[in-house]
Amino acid sequence: MIPFNKPYLTGKETKYIEEAVASGKISGNGIFTQKCQKFFEDTYGFKKALLTTSCTDALEMCALLADINAGDEVIVPSYTFVSSALAFVRQGARIIFADSYPDNPNIDADKIEKLITEKTKAIVVVHYAGIACDMEKILEIAEKYNLILIEDAAQAIDSYYTFKDGTKKALGGIGHLGAFSFHETKNIISGEGGMLTVNDDRFINRSEIIWEKGTNRSMFFRGEINKYGWVDTGSSFLPSEVISAFLWAQLENIDDIQHNRLKIWNRYYEGLKNNPKISLPVIPDFATNNAHMFYIVCNELESRTELIKRLKENNILAVFHYLSLHKSEYYLQKHDERALPNSDHFEDCLLRLPLFYELSEAEQEKVIRIINEF
Amino acid sequence: MIPFNKPYLTGKETKYIEEAVASGKISGNGIFTQKCQKFFEDTYGFKKALLTTSCTDALEMCALLADINAGDEVIVPSYTFVSSALAFVRQGARIIFADSYPDNPNIDADKIEKLITEKTKAIVVVHYAGIACDMEKILEIAEKYNLILIEDAAQAIDSYYTFKDGTKKALGGIGHLGAFSFHETKNIISGEGGMLTVNDDRFINRSEIIWEKGTNRSMFFRGEINKYGWVDTGSSFLPSEVISAFLWAQLENIDDIQHNRLKIWNRYYEGLKNNPKISLPVIPDFATNNAHMFYIVCNELESRTELIKRLKENNILAVFHYLSLHKSEYYLQKHDERALPNSDHFEDCLLRLPLFYELSEAEQEKVIRIINEF
Repeated sequence: MIPFNKPYLTGKETKYIEEAVASGKISGNGIFTQKCQKFFEDTYGFKKALLTTSCTDALEMCALLADINAGDEVIVPSYTFVSSALAFVRQGARIIFADSYPDNPNIDADKIEKLITEKTKAIVVVHYAGIACDMEKILEIAEKYNLILIEDAAQAIDSYYTFKDGTKKALGGIGHLGAFSFHETKNIISGEGGMLTVNDDRFINRSEIIWEKGTNRSMFFRGEINKYGWVDTGSSFLPSEVISAFLWAQLENIDDIQHNRLKIWNRYYEGLKNNPKISLPVIPDFATNNAHMFYIVCNELESRTELIKRLKENNILAVFHYLSLHKSEYYLQKHDERALPNSDHFEDCLLRLPLFYELSEAEQEKVIRIINEF
Repeated sequence: MIPFNKPYLTGKETKYIEEAVASGKISGNGIFTQKCQKFFEDTYGFKKALLTTSCTDALEMCALLADINAGDEVIVPSYTFVSSALAFVRQGARIIFADSYPDNPNIDADKIEKLITEKTKAIVVVHYAGIACDMEKILEIAEKYNLILIEDAAQAIDSYYTFKDGTKKALGGIGHLGAFSFHETKNIISGEGGMLTVNDDRFINRSEIIWEKGTNRSMFFRGEINKYGWVDTGSSFLPSEVISAFLWAQLENIDDIQHNRLKIWNRYYEGLKNNPKISLPVIPDFATNNAHMFYIVCNELESRTELIKRLKENNILAVFHYLSLHKSEYYLQKHDERALPNSDHFEDCLLRLPLFYELSEAEQEKVIRIINEF
């Protein structure tokens, strides 16, 4: 059986967990958490990075920092994971769902402006498969209407956007706030896990307070105040050091992991690019590819269903992805009835192929052969 | 230096983490999560147990399940951790703070009824130091006014309450909902970690949905539905299998851990019971002692400050505990101005002594000697 995903271990995860335990501190915000955060800030230029227990939690921190309240509107793509919307719904927001491009699951930047009303407070973009949205265009819109721009960079670690003037910035480091995932299906993992990135000075102090259950505990431990207490809203967003120690072992090997995933991704691309029955991922000139995912797009639901079946008969697990959120049981009645045909198209036709560190060349050739013979 | 706390490892934590990784699944709700949950349900009689990333998250699940909304009132003791109140504040609740007994930090059951208004929706009790609140009395009040009763059992693992008819129930298994902590300072640990307990059938199905980001994913994986989607509010409350594997190693040794902690607790009690300058913990007849914490209560703030100093000079770390939440920077203006003198008394006078698995008899005798000489 070729699974869809297999978590990859670098080999040092349990060693670092043992080190964390030996240090006498395994609750949050210890040595490994701080090492990971510094790595992300130094490597990708985020102004502040805070590890969280999940990307959902990082998105909830974004919603709290953006001060989303009942009645506020937030623009979110429909073709995304539940959490991209749910984190804002928990604060009382009404979600205005946006459509994808016809040939790219990312939010269609040209259709955002007409969704803005007086109640709009934030735009959430999702870099699908780690490939950048059109950030320069979206930044202009956010600035024009004074909106908070939040990057759901769950899949986008180690991926970049290049501005027209040549400036290159890491995804998650462009909007006011960003959120990453280290779920076992991601490039860099800790089972469950996530990270908030803060790129705007006005949110930095408050992000630390919200992270620590609404207390100014971090300031206390830095000696900036004499005693700590309850000063704001928040939650327990910080992960155990057990998780951060695990993550650190992954980060030490990020270059090797990324190199290997890109090799696999490119092999899929070369092997499938001449297949006339499917479309392959589009990578705009402004975007890099972090090899988070290799997907193909079939022409219709029926052929995708047949292809999944054929692959399964050959012991290969390929899986579809999101269901349009605007049609979900939870949001259908709350949605404003606009059709979002491109989102629905990817719901029906997009298929993700096995992609993990230990996928062998022979296994991959088998996947490619069966798709091309189909 | 004798620290206040030292996380204890049973020795199998990293072995089980390696097993989890070898199984190919380290995201949430895997084999170890299910093993831990079954252990808690079987051992303590909880109708349903769901591991969470923290006790704060478990309390947020309680707030969502209790359907707390803007304008609702929730009764919470003032002498507790921020999260006992914050989880309900996030849902828009107004907190009505309750006072402790004069000789016991737990909520004074005789003063709850007069805090109830038409807006009251829930009562949160906190079993301080793992010693039960007067649950029979509080259950009667909750039933009389049709309120949801939530047990903040953060410190209360393996502790019990005995009803007048002789029935004995585990704490966290008495109210409609309960929340536990596995923070590194607790008896059973995973660094950060927690658990929701559900004891009322009407909350069981929804608890699983809220736990899994508002989706019916658990039902899908049990084959009860054909595809899963967004059906409700929720968050990513479930921990990584890395955390659950760690916790499982602790649970296998819970009897040994509890036996050893009780021995230490009893040694403190015997050594300090004749000291006329301090008060010791009161354990009512209906409660058991899970040896989560050993605290003493000084006569006033000044003597506690002096004692902390004296202990520190002797390389012993003893620490005070909560600051009354009704006087916090965040809630002072929102509080209804009632004085809560017993809560303030414990804020000023309560002192926690070192208590951890590896505390030696010699170290403990030193602590006792210095307090008695003071």
